[in-house]
Amino acid sequence: MSIVGGMQDWPMNVMRLVDHAEREHGDREIVSAWADGSTTRTDWAGVARKARQMSRALRKLGIGKGDRVATLAMNHERHLISWYGAIGVGAILHTINPRLFPEQLAYIVNHAEDRVLFYDAVFAPLIDAMKSQWPTIEHFVCFDPPTGWGGDPGFEQWIGGESDDFAWVEADERDPIGLCYTSGTTGNPKGVLYEHRGMMLHAMTGAQPDCFDMTRRSCMLPIVPMFHANAWGLPWGGPMIGCKMVLSADYSPARMVELFRTESVTHSAGVPTIWIGMIQHIEATGEDLGPLRRVVIGGSAAPRAMIQWLRQRGIDVTHAWGMTELAPIGTIGAKPPEWDAMSEEQKVDWTTRQGCPPFGIEMRIVDDDGHELARDGKATGELQVRGPWTIKRYFKDDASALTPDGWFATGDVAALHPDGTMQITDRSKDVIKSGGEWISSIELENAAVGIDGIAEAACIGIFHPKWDERPLLVCVRREGCEISADDVIEGLKGKVAKWWLPDAVEFVDELPHTAVGKLSKKTLREQFADYRFEGVEELAGRD
Amino acid sequence: MSIVGGMQDWPMNVMRLVDHAEREHGDREIVSAWADGSTTRTDWAGVARKARQMSRALRKLGIGKGDRVATLAMNHERHLISWYGAIGVGAILHTINPRLFPEQLAYIVNHAEDRVLFYDAVFAPLIDAMKSQWPTIEHFVCFDPPTGWGGDPGFEQWIGGESDDFAWVEADERDPIGLCYTSGTTGNPKGVLYEHRGMMLHAMTGAQPDCFDMTRRSCMLPIVPMFHANAWGLPWGGPMIGCKMVLSADYSPARMVELFRTESVTHSAGVPTIWIGMIQHIEATGEDLGPLRRVVIGGSAAPRAMIQWLRQRGIDVTHAWGMTELAPIGTIGAKPPEWDAMSEEQKVDWTTRQGCPPFGIEMRIVDDDGHELARDGKATGELQVRGPWTIKRYFKDDASALTPDGWFATGDVAALHPDGTMQITDRSKDVIKSGGEWISSIELENAAVGIDGIAEAACIGIFHPKWDERPLLVCVRREGCEISADDVIEGLKGKVAKWWLPDAVEFVDELPHTAVGKLSKKTLREQFADYRFEGVEELAGRD
Repeated sequence: MSIVGGMQDWPMNVMRLVDHAEREHGDREIVSAWADGSTTRTDWAGVARKARQMSRALRKLGIGKGDRVATLAMNHERHLISWYGAIGVGAILHTINPRLFPEQLAYIVNHAEDRVLFYDAVFAPLIDAMKSQWPTIEHFVCFDPPTGWGGDPGFEQWIGGESDDFAWVEADERDPIGLCYTSGTTGNPKGVLYEHRGMMLHAMTGAQPDCFDMTRRSCMLPIVPMFHANAWGLPWGGPMIGCKMVLSADYSPARMVELFRTESVTHSAGVPTIWIGMIQHIEATGEDLGPLRRVVIGGSAAPRAMIQWLRQRGIDVTHAWGMTELAPIGTIGAKPPEWDAMSEEQKVDWTTRQGCPPFGIEMRIVDDDGHELARDGKATGELQVRGPWTIKRYFKDDASALTPDGWFATGDVAALHPDGTMQITDRSKDVIKSGGEWISSIELENAAVGIDGIAEAACIGIFHPKWDERPLLVCVRREGCEISADDVIEGLKGKVAKWWLPDAVEFVDELPHTAVGKLSKKTLREQFADYRFEGVEELAGRD
Repeated sequence: MSIVGGMQDWPMNVMRLVDHAEREHGDREIVSAWADGSTTRTDWAGVARKARQMSRALRKLGIGKGDRVATLAMNHERHLISWYGAIGVGAILHTINPRLFPEQLAYIVNHAEDRVLFYDAVFAPLIDAMKSQWPTIEHFVCFDPPTGWGGDPGFEQWIGGESDDFAWVEADERDPIGLCYTSGTTGNPKGVLYEHRGMMLHAMTGAQPDCFDMTRRSCMLPIVPMFHANAWGLPWGGPMIGCKMVLSADYSPARMVELFRTESVTHSAGVPTIWIGMIQHIEATGEDLGPLRRVVIGGSAAPRAMIQWLRQRGIDVTHAWGMTELAPIGTIGAKPPEWDAMSEEQKVDWTTRQGCPPFGIEMRIVDDDGHELARDGKATGELQVRGPWTIKRYFKDDASALTPDGWFATGDVAALHPDGTMQITDRSKDVIKSGGEWISSIELENAAVGIDGIAEAACIGIFHPKWDERPLLVCVRREGCEISADDVIEGLKGKVAKWWLPDAVEFVDELPHTAVGKLSKKTLREQFADYRFEGVEELAGRD
């Protein structure tokens, strides 16, 4: 007589999410704003029903357990249906980022061995250009064929003939369900495999009040594409909670602001760039954001002025930090107990930080030798993470992605504050190691763009015979400004430690960026590979 | 090269909850209001530290994996510490309900084979009386020995000599951690075994905005005892979120209301009876409830007037339904999308319902033959449940507690509404089966107590030669009232279907109750075992 097994066996499976939504929140709406300006509506029951039709259609093509099914699409109901339809038949959903360079697109599709591709008509030219390099893809289906389309089958027609009677393929909770490639700045993209278990725990965490704060009454408009780390998990969280979702394939500020108002959006999530456009649009038109009350900003740091602007309009802003390898939530701005007693100024200050790890994320910082550092807000070291939705191994990689004691090294340099807040200070490959101490390239860049006349700045370490590395600041001048290198050094004084001041400032017309718009320090370092500081011998005595 | 194993292995274990709280929310307070009127304070770091000391102390007694450690205590920090200390060494925590009858107390301790008992001084007389019947208990520890105490070791002293250096015993996520006995109205109490996995998923669900809505800023005062289904999971949810907790061993309205104000309690949870006392106290004294903003009421149905009273004071009321076998959350009042457009009257009406199943609870209703019934709000049948925190098998029971197709039969009769709401209409053993149709004893009782002059009412089915069963209503008159059986029938007309009207009304001075204060229909049925309706032959023609 065993004492084990008192509770029921109930494997975690994301298909349970859409089953739950169909059963308990079947008529809760899913609104799609399409690229052609039209809007369509379905509900959770409709999503579940069409997902079953799609699973049947995929099975007819011979797609099953472990096969890779890809999407190249923006946010809309059919993209959402295709996630559940692909996973429901046992396949792994590969969400391709259309903004990757052609050589990256060729690499990842072949590496993933995608067998079917679902795509938006807007990407047809891209597909025509890539097709010859994608030999593994056997079937192409277009999500939104325009009138008169003569190409691949259209999604609705393709599933339309199928019955919606389908039992989801059984799965172990550790079976993979999703594949996202990270567009690293070095080497080939690497695939991150998401699993039933991790994504479900991530969704249960994401809904909590200190994270996305999702209720059955919420109307969520994710402004993060579904190919970016599963739109931060929102397409899993939505059916779990039964909220209304608004999916927009059109990211123009005018369309978005209209959707916020007409669909009574209460919750949103996105990167800062999106909000810059919307704020400019609203300032120019005098429109408003309707009942919007909660915004999560992540992907990169939200500027102070943006936080202020949103808060002044009664919108609660939460700042988050994550990575594709973390599915993606790493930290989120759970407001501290003393929040109500804080001034507005203090609240904005606090919100500029990236928050704390929710339960399910364990963090530590370590020095170069892997020794754990103090959580005192002062020590900075490489940030390492552990948890059920954190990567263990990249797709098709035999080697573990973890340290020997089981932690994932994020490649970020951070400080951990005693109040639980995590603060990113740099990327570990970008940090400048000067005389055994670390100089944060990000802090120098932030200080530099605070100087009038500087539009953009990048800081890299340059070899130095005495200090190993010293900072070089590369700047782009604002149009019409004549600022000099000395002006920049002068402007930095008092804002960074004296020994952090760059040894040189150079000006360029343009800084290099990656396919997804991030500053490419790798390319910059290549451009400045032979750079040497003038009169380095003089620096020997500097303190 | 396997494609499985992309994410990290991270077994669910409730000890991670207190580790997380110590690391991320270490200085968040735990306040204890003791039975002797004193108040003490610790924090999550203190709870974790003392739990490690306690695990060491238990190991010295030879306690380890699977051993049962019992508590007989009200809510306070030491009781909380003892949960983590017992589970940390691998033991199963048996929380004993001190309100059970002596024969039940004797039965459950022997059935559980408890080896250690931690208890509150207030229960010392009970323990003295029971000790000779509890041969398995080897060690007794008193949580709160008063000054001059000469008995068993006191908790603080007992753990005080231990170092706090202890690594929690490793566990499988399906290992049992807790044991609660249900005080059924028939037969011996039955033990429900909680597991790491189920309790963690339950905690992740409980924190969500549509459930307890717990944030890092919340201050939670559970008014549900820790021996009632783990205080509805709140001692697991608290450290997960890092909220402040106020634990009170004293349930007097004056003390509770004082705690709400002085500790700035924002969240609370409890049974209706507790709130009746507090409301009367506040009405009499004119005190207020401080910043309280959210109350979850469960255990039995919250009266409409109570919901109204709390809402009028700006307190959001959520109604929940659960069972020990469900750990305990079954449904909770997730507000519907149309909430904001509802009138206050409609909001109160809606809140009187018990809510919907959160993700993790699947429900169905079935007829006598086990066929699933429609979710149309009209059909009523036995409520069955499935999910990761729902029981599979009672402790030491070889037989499964489930139907052949894997559902737990709750013993409640319910309707499922199209909007997802579940409505309990009766206990399945109390429902009156008349001519092949069901009559809800609960609805008849509710209608009866709505009649002036009736203090309490119970309805049972009495054998009838034609209809199988017909309802007998047994009433207690309000003091000084002279209401007659005919008056009662008259009062029920128009409130229940004509064919539901009781065939007889009898008056008694007192109705029988169980140890935990619930109406005991089992005893009532015994009392009326030989009862027969007068002139049953006349009824043959009734429609």
